[in-house]
Amino acid sequence: MATADVEIPKTYKGAIYDKPGELSTQVKELDMPEPGPGQVLINLTHSGVCHSDFGVMMSSWAGLPFPTQAGQVGGHEGVGKIVKMGSGTERSPVKVGDRVGIKWVASVCDACPACLAGHDGVCFNQQVSGYYFPGTFQQYALGPASYVTPIPEGLDSAAAAPLLCAGVTVYSALRKSNTRSGNWVVVLGAGGGLGHLAVQFASRCMGLRVIGIDADAKKDIAEESGAEHFIGLSEKEVSKKVMELTGGLGAHAVLCVSAANAAYAGSVDMLRFGGTLVCVGIPEGKPVPIASALPQFLIAKELKIVGVAVGNRKEAIETLEFAARGLVKVHYRVEKLDKLTDVFKEMESGQLKGRVVLDLSAS
Amino acid sequence: MATADVEIPKTYKGAIYDKPGELSTQVKELDMPEPGPGQVLINLTHSGVCHSDFGVMMSSWAGLPFPTQAGQVGGHEGVGKIVKMGSGTERSPVKVGDRVGIKWVASVCDACPACLAGHDGVCFNQQVSGYYFPGTFQQYALGPASYVTPIPEGLDSAAAAPLLCAGVTVYSALRKSNTRSGNWVVVLGAGGGLGHLAVQFASRCMGLRVIGIDADAKKDIAEESGAEHFIGLSEKEVSKKVMELTGGLGAHAVLCVSAANAAYAGSVDMLRFGGTLVCVGIPEGKPVPIASALPQFLIAKELKIVGVAVGNRKEAIETLEFAARGLVKVHYRVEKLDKLTDVFKEMESGQLKGRVVLDLSAS
Amino acid sequence: MATADVEIPKTYKGAIYDKPGELSTQVKELDMPEPGPGQVLINLTHSGVCHSDFGVMMSSWAGLPFPTQAGQVGGHEGVGKIVKMGSGTERSPVKVGDRVGIKWVASVCDACPACLAGHDGVCFNQQVSGYYFPGTFQQYALGPASYVTPIPEGLDSAAAAPLLCAGVTVYSALRKSNTRSGNWVVVLGAGGGLGHLAVQFASRCMGLRVIGIDADAKKDIAEESGAEHFIGLSEKEVSKKVMELTGGLGAHAVLCVSAANAAYAGSVDMLRFGGTLVCVGIPEGKPVPIASALPQFLIAKELKIVGVAVGNRKEAIETLEFAARGLVKVHYRVEKLDKLTDVFKEMESGQLKGRVVLDLSAS
Amino acid sequence: MATADVEIPKTYKGAIYDKPGELSTQVKELDMPEPGPGQVLINLTHSGVCHSDFGVMMSSWAGLPFPTQAGQVGGHEGVGKIVKMGSGTERSPVKVGDRVGIKWVASVCDACPACLAGHDGVCFNQQVSGYYFPGTFQQYALGPASYVTPIPEGLDSAAAAPLLCAGVTVYSALRKSNTRSGNWVVVLGAGGGLGHLAVQFASRCMGLRVIGIDADAKKDIAEESGAEHFIGLSEKEVSKKVMELTGGLGAHAVLCVSAANAAYAGSVDMLRFGGTLVCVGIPEGKPVPIASALPQFLIAKELKIVGVAVGNRKEAIETLEFAARGLVKVHYRVEKLDKLTDVFKEMESGQLKGRVVLDLSAS
Repeated sequence: MATADVEIPKTYKGAIYDKPGELSTQVKELDMPEPGPGQVLINLTHSGVCHSDFGVMMSSWAGLPFPTQAGQVGGHEGVGKIVKMGSGTERSPVKVGDRVGIKWVASVCDACPACLAGHDGVCFNQQVSGYYFPGTFQQYALGPASYVTPIPEGLDSAAAAPLLCAGVTVYSALRKSNTRSGNWVVVLGAGGGLGHLAVQFASRCMGLRVIGIDADAKKDIAEESGAEHFIGLSEKEVSKKVMELTGGLGAHAVLCVSAANAAYAGSVDMLRFGGTLVCVGIPEGKPVPIASALPQFLIAKELKIVGVAVGNRKEAIETLEFAARGLVKVHYRVEKLDKLTDVFKEMESGQLKGRVVLDLSAS
Repeated sequence: MATADVEIPKTYKGAIYDKPGELSTQVKELDMPEPGPGQVLINLTHSGVCHSDFGVMMSSWAGLPFPTQAGQVGGHEGVGKIVKMGSGTERSPVKVGDRVGIKWVASVCDACPACLAGHDGVCFNQQVSGYYFPGTFQQYALGPASYVTPIPEGLDSAAAAPLLCAGVTVYSALRKSNTRSGNWVVVLGAGGGLGHLAVQFASRCMGLRVIGIDADAKKDIAEESGAEHFIGLSEKEVSKKVMELTGGLGAHAVLCVSAANAAYAGSVDMLRFGGTLVCVGIPEGKPVPIASALPQFLIAKELKIVGVAVGNRKEAIETLEFAARGLVKVHYRVEKLDKLTDVFKEMESGQLKGRVVLDLSAS
Repeated sequence: MATADVEIPKTYKGAIYDKPGELSTQVKELDMPEPGPGQVLINLTHSGVCHSDFGVMMSSWAGLPFPTQAGQVGGHEGVGKIVKMGSGTERSPVKVGDRVGIKWVASVCDACPACLAGHDGVCFNQQVSGYYFPGTFQQYALGPASYVTPIPEGLDSAAAAPLLCAGVTVYSALRKSNTRSGNWVVVLGAGGGLGHLAVQFASRCMGLRVIGIDADAKKDIAEESGAEHFIGLSEKEVSKKVMELTGGLGAHAVLCVSAANAAYAGSVDMLRFGGTLVCVGIPEGKPVPIASALPQFLIAKELKIVGVAVGNRKEAIETLEFAARGLVKVHYRVEKLDKLTDVFKEMESGQLKGRVVLDLSAS
Repeated sequence: MATADVEIPKTYKGAIYDKPGELSTQVKELDMPEPGPGQVLINLTHSGVCHSDFGVMMSSWAGLPFPTQAGQVGGHEGVGKIVKMGSGTERSPVKVGDRVGIKWVASVCDACPACLAGHDGVCFNQQVSGYYFPGTFQQYALGPASYVTPIPEGLDSAAAAPLLCAGVTVYSALRKSNTRSGNWVVVLGAGGGLGHLAVQFASRCMGLRVIGIDADAKKDIAEESGAEHFIGLSEKEVSKKVMELTGGLGAHAVLCVSAANAAYAGSVDMLRFGGTLVCVGIPEGKPVPIASALPQFLIAKELKIVGVAVGNRKEAIETLEFAARGLVKVHYRVEKLDKLTDVFKEMESGQLKGRVVLDLSAS
């Protein structure tokens, strides 16, 4: 069994949800796990904090089939170095010393129909980081040698962390938008955590022309991210404005990263014939059908709607490659692990701007 | 100007909507038109009668932007022989004596963004047969040399007529269902006019495995058309049954050719991860969003929804090629042109079984 | 560690290449291996004998980078039941008692660029069954839980074996031929081991129209397999005949499963504009460029050429599903393991008709 | 019949090939043509001069099926304003006063199998500008209302002209290269007329990463055009260098715009598994098979080869849209029509740098 020269301690620090359902985390000393067959042990240096983590902690999020368990280590945007390889990893493309990342889907089975079709996010046997599988709010974590994401040289670990979740998701969504370079894409929620990344990937990596839509105050971040046009939500006739900006035709695709049902309601109206609405943002509360998803209208304009959960392994690698070339940048600030509860409080109050990345290093 | 040896009369018979908004047609003597630049004159021998014609006659159909005009010649499933070519048709692939068909989209501009993308049905300058353009309930009609559909040898003219509408539409819809041979497709409305053709194209031409769903009485026609399984609507848990028949996974695609909002409501539930709902049937009355088109659900299973209006020129040709090989058969009976009003009455009463094709010949 | 109720012996029978480079195999008593992490132990009941095995035994085949080692257990078309699961297979979709198959590519790494792109055959870390990895000419073999191919119910084990190689390869090649149902495909070598399967998959599973080309004596098997037309090689102008049969246009695709350079030489001439030549058969001897792959000609007709090595995991499963439905049948006869040397002799002499499947059972 | 306010003269100036087979052109007074059915009359202001025009004049080019006729007006990169519409153009998307372009394929039939498949360049009934159809070396020319290419606002007419040929071809070739943004593409002949445009489209419009290969002296133009790396032909191991620059894997696609057989010979070696060679440059002289198009090698790496003749109508529009946004720039100088013979002499001597665009205006 290959091991790094660095000494691996017996215990280390991690943050657990001590009272699932309440806004509370607790930093504890945890026992060092042993990598099982096919697994690697990773010494994590950074972990992003995502709004989904908040939902898991509160055990309140609609997408969760089971209540969160006390003692769960959360987090799903982790980056660090491999320090130990489990059995059966001899032919693995990663090795001790490699920098790798862990994302929401922490492992897949590689053999179910969903895996065979490249749909990691719906693998029948998947494990989710930070939910019924120990997450990344800790200094050491396990992951499958064949599934952890290699971090390319030249990409800072702190900057890589949030890309493993928000970045990969919007990248995958854009890839499924049936667009090609030169096409128009509307990003609904262009100034938010997912949105500002979607605008960057679309405009700087894929050659798409972006119309950003969001609250008026988000104009600057959307335009800095590469939006060719911005429409503030105070504007009266948003769809009509989109039509004007696209030569009267409408956009080739609309990417809805907003979680507002109202955003979905008018989204289809912005599309040209044959266009595609990509659903990414998950509305909270009672599910409501997309108000403009009328058979008559979809048929008359031959439109498409597609739902995207998360990106797959290949898309995760491509996402980081673009970032390593300096084409995509996340807005984030760094905090220590013991500030996690405070970060969640900021999140709850709606005060949090950009992303927070936890520095997991010892001191 | 090329002309057939046959003599072209000065007048001929056609049926007009004499009182749009009422169930009434009138057979009249009409003046022979002259083919304009790029056009051909066709001596029609047969025309199908479609439910959309009824809607145009009644000037009541939701899809129509303008009221139907008195004197309109209806019909959009015509077959006959070219008897005269207009100017500018020298390099045309069709010539005098060729058997050709006219369909709902009677002509396109070949140059607008929709045409360039292969979306004939949303051509910005399209002409619709039997609605603001003289249709096929007449013995002679005009059509563009580059757009009329060649009828392959070995395919009976009467049998070809209804394929130009229902056949082309379901063929195109299946092509847009993101399936490949061996996949499962559910046809909602499998025993109806569009449905029984969809089942035949799917099972006999494309190698798809079909689960037909319709009223219990439609079991026979669905199974004769090639459905591997049939689920009657009296069945309590239709979606659950689909799951069982597909190894617990659900279908790769659902084709909704039914016009019932209730059919759409449960359609998405029958899909496996990554599956596609194809919307074809246009519900009448006030538009209602597809009840199961919830962002949460589309995202969780990474589903797709796509609207299909009509097939394009290439798909029309392919549709007829399959039929000429004997793989697809329409259920129809033949009536004379002067029975058209009676046919519409039968249609209104719901008594009409299968399609009616009008024999347009002189006596 | 899960184990079947059946007792697993300490040793078992297998055939090794005792003198690589010579036509010789030896049946020996071998020690039972233990499944490693991620592996399963399979009690094989059948193994096909493929021409590639002959090449490995003779250590002569151009495709082999290294000389074959004495003691190598050959074979790469094995079927049997899982009797033991290694560590780390808890979440695997297969379990003890399941019937599974082993194919040429015995395992892949799931993480290299080739794997991520679905190109199993060029996985940078692949293991090949029967060549530097113990093969299927033995009663027990190891394979990865996530990579062995589940055998569907209703498909005989003996019949499944040869499909795991020849079947999967031609199935994959057809999927990469840029065709869709109703299109014309020419199969060069239509009556051979790969060819008669290609004809069946094309015509019975995918709705393609097949023109088979082969030595005149192969007419019967090609037509029984579903070829709509057959052209014997004694015919003088083969390409011209293809043109005639396809309405003067040429085929949408040509599948060359023949290993003759002469077959490749004329293959491109049979294509219509935009058509695709799929290369499958590997010519022996000094490599020769495809004589008709002239830039001028490829450009003038906008043609495509594509090379296909083997199918991937998903395609293997789909191949067997079609066979389980009775749509595809292999011609084979059954022999006992100790007849292997004789089978190879028959192969060398060119007398072998159809495939041989070894019955690996004890007596 | 719609006519512009401007007066249309009875005669105008044009350059003809007075002695096909020799380097000679003659400016003559020509009679004004009348637009036929479906046609427009265009007052041309600019025409590019392409190397293919030279071949037509010399009646020597391998791609020409028939000898050039004396009196032929050459040229196929024309831009000007519509001054008159023929009959049957009422529903056309262009009108008098619109600026439009004429390209190599001057008209297509919109109905043959090639047209239906979007392959304008192989339309069975196409007309070629400047070869058996009056070209663009004249002040007035005819073209089909549905096929002339609209010139977007903000794009200079002189700059647009050469894009209608070289630009459209390389744009189309890149679209058929099976790449997506972030992928590596090698351009063989990166500093030439087609090459410097290919590099710009790839890097600035499509988000591809470009390795340019050409004579050492072309380094500057390749890099100014956006090549991330340049390899001079004096370099000893060009393929090896490509491997190094692409992380040991090779490029996703190689675009060969060079007309040298030697360029084709090594092109396949630069590809990674599954990669695509796109053939664009047409070698002169006796056709030679692509030396590295060996079945063994194509199969082992699962490679693709594709030939591309010209772009279609939709691609022409997209090409100009990118240029109108300032992303692509052609190197050209302007000359008057009566300098055409001199321009061809410069071309013959190999002294010509960049493109020449003729100013066709009166004085």
